[in-house]
Amino acid sequence: MKSYQELSKEELENLHADLCRQFEEAKGKGLSLDMSRGKPSPAQLDPVMPLLDAITAETLMKASDGTDCRNYGVLDGIPEAKELMAQMVGTDAANMIVCGNASLPIMYDTVSRSMTHGVCGSTPWCKLEQVKFLCPAPGYDRHFKITEHFGIEMIVIPMKADGPDMDLVEQYVNNDPTVKGIWCVPKYSNPQGYTYSKETVERFAKLTPAAEDFRIYWDNAYCIHDLYEEKQDVLEDILGACAKAGHPDLVFEFCSTSKVSFPGAGVAAVATSENNRKWMKSSMMIQTIGYDKLNQLRHVAYYHDLNGFKAQMKKHADFLRPKFEAVEKVLETELAGLGIGCWTKPLGGYFISFEAMDGCAKAIVEKCAEAGVKLTGAGATYPYGKDPKDSNIRIAPSFPTPEELSAAADLFVLCVKLISVEKLLAA
Amino acid sequence: MKSYQELSKEELENLHADLCRQFEEAKGKGLSLDMSRGKPSPAQLDPVMPLLDAITAETLMKASDGTDCRNYGVLDGIPEAKELMAQMVGTDAANMIVCGNASLPIMYDTVSRSMTHGVCGSTPWCKLEQVKFLCPAPGYDRHFKITEHFGIEMIVIPMKADGPDMDLVEQYVNNDPTVKGIWCVPKYSNPQGYTYSKETVERFAKLTPAAEDFRIYWDNAYCIHDLYEEKQDVLEDILGACAKAGHPDLVFEFCSTSKVSFPGAGVAAVATSENNRKWMKSSMMIQTIGYDKLNQLRHVAYYHDLNGFKAQMKKHADFLRPKFEAVEKVLETELAGLGIGCWTKPLGGYFISFEAMDGCAKAIVEKCAEAGVKLTGAGATYPYGKDPKDSNIRIAPSFPTPEELSAAADLFVLCVKLISVEKLLAA
Repeated sequence: MKSYQELSKEELENLHADLCRQFEEAKGKGLSLDMSRGKPSPAQLDPVMPLLDAITAETLMKASDGTDCRNYGVLDGIPEAKELMAQMVGTDAANMIVCGNASLPIMYDTVSRSMTHGVCGSTPWCKLEQVKFLCPAPGYDRHFKITEHFGIEMIVIPMKADGPDMDLVEQYVNNDPTVKGIWCVPKYSNPQGYTYSKETVERFAKLTPAAEDFRIYWDNAYCIHDLYEEKQDVLEDILGACAKAGHPDLVFEFCSTSKVSFPGAGVAAVATSENNRKWMKSSMMIQTIGYDKLNQLRHVAYYHDLNGFKAQMKKHADFLRPKFEAVEKVLETELAGLGIGCWTKPLGGYFISFEAMDGCAKAIVEKCAEAGVKLTGAGATYPYGKDPKDSNIRIAPSFPTPEELSAAADLFVLCVKLISVEKLLAA
Repeated sequence: MKSYQELSKEELENLHADLCRQFEEAKGKGLSLDMSRGKPSPAQLDPVMPLLDAITAETLMKASDGTDCRNYGVLDGIPEAKELMAQMVGTDAANMIVCGNASLPIMYDTVSRSMTHGVCGSTPWCKLEQVKFLCPAPGYDRHFKITEHFGIEMIVIPMKADGPDMDLVEQYVNNDPTVKGIWCVPKYSNPQGYTYSKETVERFAKLTPAAEDFRIYWDNAYCIHDLYEEKQDVLEDILGACAKAGHPDLVFEFCSTSKVSFPGAGVAAVATSENNRKWMKSSMMIQTIGYDKLNQLRHVAYYHDLNGFKAQMKKHADFLRPKFEAVEKVLETELAGLGIGCWTKPLGGYFISFEAMDGCAKAIVEKCAEAGVKLTGAGATYPYGKDPKDSNIRIAPSFPTPEELSAAADLFVLCVKLISVEKLLAA
């Protein structure tokens, strides 16, 4: 099979005519499919429903320390919820602050608190001329939105299969005191599904920041979100690595049950050092009397421990795996060898990342939308929504059914071909 | 009966000796009672337990607009939760943003957002030389902690039985552009149990602030928290009054089910104008994907409407009324006519406010603690924890049993007498 680059102008023109015809035909089908957001399907959520019966009107609502979970009290989580969430990320319960329904507000509040109050006694960022964050990209759009919202300058760090470009990270962090943070999704990264290698984690732990208030924002959103039993990525414990390197205060690790129990009705937590917890709690205690302890208790009563989480994740994987495979199969069958795109084959998480030819991503996404298939907006995976090469497209296969996904993927590869041919003809 | 002021030195000295003996006797009982926080008793929470069965694993978790409440989506609350919370404060569902488990975080976040982003386009407060809030006092300590946390200068406004001193409020708000807000608990105020009169509400609505970013923080925490069926305070609708006065953007009204369902596991909301909602949502959408819609649905399924709330509040009142009456009876029997203190007799809310002789509050609270009765720290009801006259004591009768309350109140009046006599002897 020839790659598109090897085709003559005439061959490309014939191909283009053929693809245009196919596209018009596809458009006629009136598809309405959404591969834009990483949300579970309704069918995937059905097996989580018994969680809602884990506590009832008959339950004694006492935490292990005697706390009446129906009443005021306890800022940083009931003891058993700390233990449960600690097991999720593989750290000690003593490191945990268990919060509300999702981890995004914890991250937002952490940046917001740094703006108004500084970090562990440093100058509030709102008083500084310049504050910068490193943004491994492609990455999670909602991370970038937070730093953009606060006027923090974002610097793109290229992502590799073993994590961010650590040479560049070290260069920035260790030399530029205006660099105050870095956004990381270290396992099954959004959108590529990459997991940071042991070496990458250790290089993170050994950073010697020019800024005393520099912190790693380690969003371990997919820590137990494996698609396969027999092949799984392994992520080193960053808190342990930082402590070992003598930098216990370097990292905030975030986690939640958003894609374990119910998105928006889960339990979220942050794991970090004693100094950092003390700092966080100093404003948390002003912001809230306490988070929802009944929902914490509900999650503990239902999942018990890491094994309970894993049993649920296995059920989730049974829904997700065929969806990833459906998309991958179409990509492989239709695009392999054509030289117009490559894609990741993650072992977990919620996304497949597609790299189109430079300058094609936006046009492909638009073309898909024209025929009824919604993808994440091109550029969304980069700070300020600007993909410098206009090449990355995030595919989120979790919500549609496998059948819908095949149809959506068929249209997607058609649009990739069409836009790529147009690009080559225009060159 | 003679007031203490009418007693001779000798009479006071004899009285003092007698009170000291009584105090030592009371101390010997080894009491351990807490009248410090406005939290419901466990018995009061038992009748709320069926809420937990209002949604189960069998429930179809669809909101009225078709939203799957188990999944991501909906920033500002499901429609039926907006309707329910709107009925609580007597406004239109269109004015509501329904949030998470409590209203304190909404207030904190509103101040925090004003610090970093300004209000509806104004200069961020963190960029200003000076920002001031008016603090009707005695008031709610957690309000004052928020403004203190952000370095906002707090100005005490005396509270009267019909609300804050409005002459002073108007003078500050209409002339000083550094005054950006005022904390209000307009119904059954914390701690006095006062309700703002119709005239007070109308004067609030007619304010013409020197600062375009001035807002009234209207914490309607006790809007349906009546103790009696036959006599209840009535509060005018501030949103309606502001709209009528041509100042629709003047107010944020906060409410929650914290003391309706479960403290910390309730549903909270803010009611405000379209401009203000747009501004709030512009950062809420960065901070969160959405609040806990299952808990919103649970509350709707259980309470249905205002009548459901009122039925629950009637049960709460049956627990609370005897407690208020137990304390009031002791105060009346033991202190009436002595000239050493006066107290409020609220028709709702969670507190009784006691005014001791000037300079006595701290000593009374300490004396009570010495004999095992914990009261809210003296001064807590004033900004910076500083009661200028050292006279206000907040009594929270909701948590102990009526029997415990009688014992606690007996000790309290004993300490009031003792400290007052000492004060008079030292004069």
